[in-house]
Amino acid sequence: MGEMGETEVVLLGWHLSMFSTKVRIALEEKGIEYEYKEEDILHNKSPLLLKNNPVYKKVPVLIHNGKPVCESKIITEYIEESWKDKSPLLPSDPYLRSQSRFWADYTDKIYEFGMKLVRGSKGEEMEKAREELLGCLKVMEEEIGEKSFFMGEKFGHVDIAFMSYYSHIYTFETLGKFSLEKDCPKLFALATKCMERESVSKTLGDPHMIYEAIIMYRKSLNLED
Amino acid sequence: MGEMGETEVVLLGWHLSMFSTKVRIALEEKGIEYEYKEEDILHNKSPLLLKNNPVYKKVPVLIHNGKPVCESKIITEYIEESWKDKSPLLPSDPYLRSQSRFWADYTDKIYEFGMKLVRGSKGEEMEKAREELLGCLKVMEEEIGEKSFFMGEKFGHVDIAFMSYYSHIYTFETLGKFSLEKDCPKLFALATKCMERESVSKTLGDPHMIYEAIIMYRKSLNLED
Repeated sequence: MGEMGETEVVLLGWHLSMFSTKVRIALEEKGIEYEYKEEDILHNKSPLLLKNNPVYKKVPVLIHNGKPVCESKIITEYIEESWKDKSPLLPSDPYLRSQSRFWADYTDKIYEFGMKLVRGSKGEEMEKAREELLGCLKVMEEEIGEKSFFMGEKFGHVDIAFMSYYSHIYTFETLGKFSLEKDCPKLFALATKCMERESVSKTLGDPHMIYEAIIMYRKSLNLED
Repeated sequence: MGEMGETEVVLLGWHLSMFSTKVRIALEEKGIEYEYKEEDILHNKSPLLLKNNPVYKKVPVLIHNGKPVCESKIITEYIEESWKDKSPLLPSDPYLRSQSRFWADYTDKIYEFGMKLVRGSKGEEMEKAREELLGCLKVMEEEIGEKSFFMGEKFGHVDIAFMSYYSHIYTFETLGKFSLEKDCPKLFALATKCMERESVSKTLGDPHMIYEAIIMYRKSLNLED
């Protein structure tokens, strides 16, 4: 515990979890100091995790002055509301907020389809996941239009949602045999711009390391030779 | 369109959708006048729906002064933020807000498990869905403790989430062979108290009609004789 009156922020996360990454980018954007604790999520969950997320036993968990907040979407809303004055991640207008939440949720779906590809066996199943994934990416591509970021000229909630799994995109491209740069040039340009932000670049994992980890995972499921 | 300067609220919904019901209870609680338009969601989606929710083509859609908001969770947040001063559904404290959102999401899971039961064939599958459903209900039962409503002494967000499918509970009980009243007496008492509110009682469908509709649905899937 920090000293009396000091704010203490602890994040329980896992380096391969896009949901942890999402929360880390939000904390960095807000300039909030926090202690990051890596969880051994596959083999040995810590007593701290089990105590602070007894319902799901999953990361990320944000512990703020001893009180836990679980589920990445709920955590990012909590961060936005608790540190209101520091670089807002959501627009203040209720309608634009609703649109931000809508597209952030949609963005999460892209990751889900990507993970379907990761868990897919060869053939038809992979082809279907690839089509769904590309379909969603094209919807986002369309949505960007002439804007710099998803919701306009300011980096925010939807950009964080997309960038939180941007290091996984290399894996999705390789397994799905597509190229974000060629197939979704606006999305690629947006991601490149987002990568210029320290909040993003210092938080994201190495795409090749993630690819290796996922190929090992596929081998463990006998989906790769 | 209403006259210039008038607020116009239209809700596209479906009477069997708990997500539509959730939004209706929230609107009623806030005392917001709105026009409800029933969609023929299974056979003939209206051009208005397709135009206002082109991504998912699903209900509910709230159209506020011509602008659409989709997805029930996003709509309830939008309602809360747009009509801030009328009976708040979320606590003002960020931590308590996060807890409300957490339990409202959890409550949605109960419905998902209930629908697994609805789509289950006889035997093992149904038994598994029943166990999951009852497990979640017991977690909620525990969470209520000595409180009148889920988050304390005030009706709010989590209560709305639970009550939005309360008319389905009779079906879940019948298919799952359990009794909410006996197995989860606190949850039953809370629901009974919520039913005293006009916002809830006038919005919920008839449990027996929902049961009949679901049995017909199961017959159409050859899950019932």
